[in-house]
Amino acid sequence: MTLEGLEEARRADRVFAEFYTSMMPNLRVDKLEDMIGKKIEVLTRAQLEDENGERILSSAKRERVAFLVPGDPMIATTHVSLRLTLAKEGVGSRIIYSASIFSAICGSTGLQSYKFGKSTTLPRDESTPPSVIDVIRENRSRNLHTLLLLELKTDGKPQLTIRSAINKLVQADPGIRERLAVGVARLGSPDQQVGAGRVSRLAESDFGPVPHTLVFPGKLHFMEAEALKAFAGATDPDLEGST
Amino acid sequence: MTLEGLEEARRADRVFAEFYTSMMPNLRVDKLEDMIGKKIEVLTRAQLEDENGERILSSAKRERVAFLVPGDPMIATTHVSLRLTLAKEGVGSRIIYSASIFSAICGSTGLQSYKFGKSTTLPRDESTPPSVIDVIRENRSRNLHTLLLLELKTDGKPQLTIRSAINKLVQADPGIRERLAVGVARLGSPDQQVGAGRVSRLAESDFGPVPHTLVFPGKLHFMEAEALKAFAGATDPDLEGST
Repeated sequence: MTLEGLEEARRADRVFAEFYTSMMPNLRVDKLEDMIGKKIEVLTRAQLEDENGERILSSAKRERVAFLVPGDPMIATTHVSLRLTLAKEGVGSRIIYSASIFSAICGSTGLQSYKFGKSTTLPRDESTPPSVIDVIRENRSRNLHTLLLLELKTDGKPQLTIRSAINKLVQADPGIRERLAVGVARLGSPDQQVGAGRVSRLAESDFGPVPHTLVFPGKLHFMEAEALKAFAGATDPDLEGST
Repeated sequence: MTLEGLEEARRADRVFAEFYTSMMPNLRVDKLEDMIGKKIEVLTRAQLEDENGERILSSAKRERVAFLVPGDPMIATTHVSLRLTLAKEGVGSRIIYSASIFSAICGSTGLQSYKFGKSTTLPRDESTPPSVIDVIRENRSRNLHTLLLLELKTDGKPQLTIRSAINKLVQADPGIRERLAVGVARLGSPDQQVGAGRVSRLAESDFGPVPHTLVFPGKLHFMEAEALKAFAGATDPDLEGST
């Protein structure tokens, strides 16, 4: 959370939050409430999506409202949709930006932001859609990196791990076993873990608790290769064919 | 700045900063020093790049050091290079992520993150490199959005504005005049300004002080089109051919 975000939450008459569009390991709502000095009303997916944010909307019509979301706001369509509804009702809103996996993935891996192509998400329940393999392949053919998000669910079922994601991908495209990939676990947490290597090797690594995510690098710049070796345990054989 | 960043800066024995890899409008170093409770040593580009971060390095060998940078750290190669130098000398380092244009551009425009292709930078002094036009065109052919950063310089010359960038782009590819674009000025500031419309119309708009940036949207989802109308003043004729 940024200082500006905290200030705005303190200034608000009422504070809502949702924590289902992303995972916040180590989140403590009571600690957050202490800092803000107010009770936080945590909304479920149903309250936000099925009821179209009715609670926030009706409150925002008569008082100053803050809505806390995990990561950088508006990455989720739900947030954009809520903001559009507010605009239609003539209620002004303003975004306070924060850290997001879409930029933090660069710092955590050492891969350069302008070399990322389109990103995509691996769904948890279905088999791998051909579009996911296509995105990785197309980016690769343009020498670009692919950020592959692993779908989150809030229904209590196990989340996708790097290992289970790799199994799904290899089933759809066995050639992927020989590719270089970077696994990132708990990005931004004190116990963040980053590991780069051949997919077949990553599948054997233990990345610990979720959330996990994967990057399939395109062609590596010298400094990107150095970073993967220094901070992600990649070896020269791992990087062969990618530099 | 995040709460975690502030905490870490307070804990450090010595605090360095650089403010040249991005522009921070309204930045007040004295206010930052008050919050942190320490003097901040602001490094120039020369001190960081030509001297390879020698000051930070020698300090980090014997005490706890915080290094403040504008935006999300490690987006600039300078930061990655410094971190690699630290690693080579056996000095541990850790990144505290924050807001970045690479994700905040989604919130400010309502354009979806997974629909952005490769991003690129328009250089200030040269004429438009063909690669810049190619990136926009290639992304567009895959229905993807392009984030076009406008190069920053610290030598006191005027910065690239949305208007001057458009003039450069149209010289290289006159067809671009009829394209839809989104101009974003002072992203994240209280006086942030966002305007969407045909390039020929944006060239006439006044976006105020820099920093400015541009987005060339690919194919728009219904909700993206709605957002550009609600928050960026786009009209239906502007969006024709993009939805």
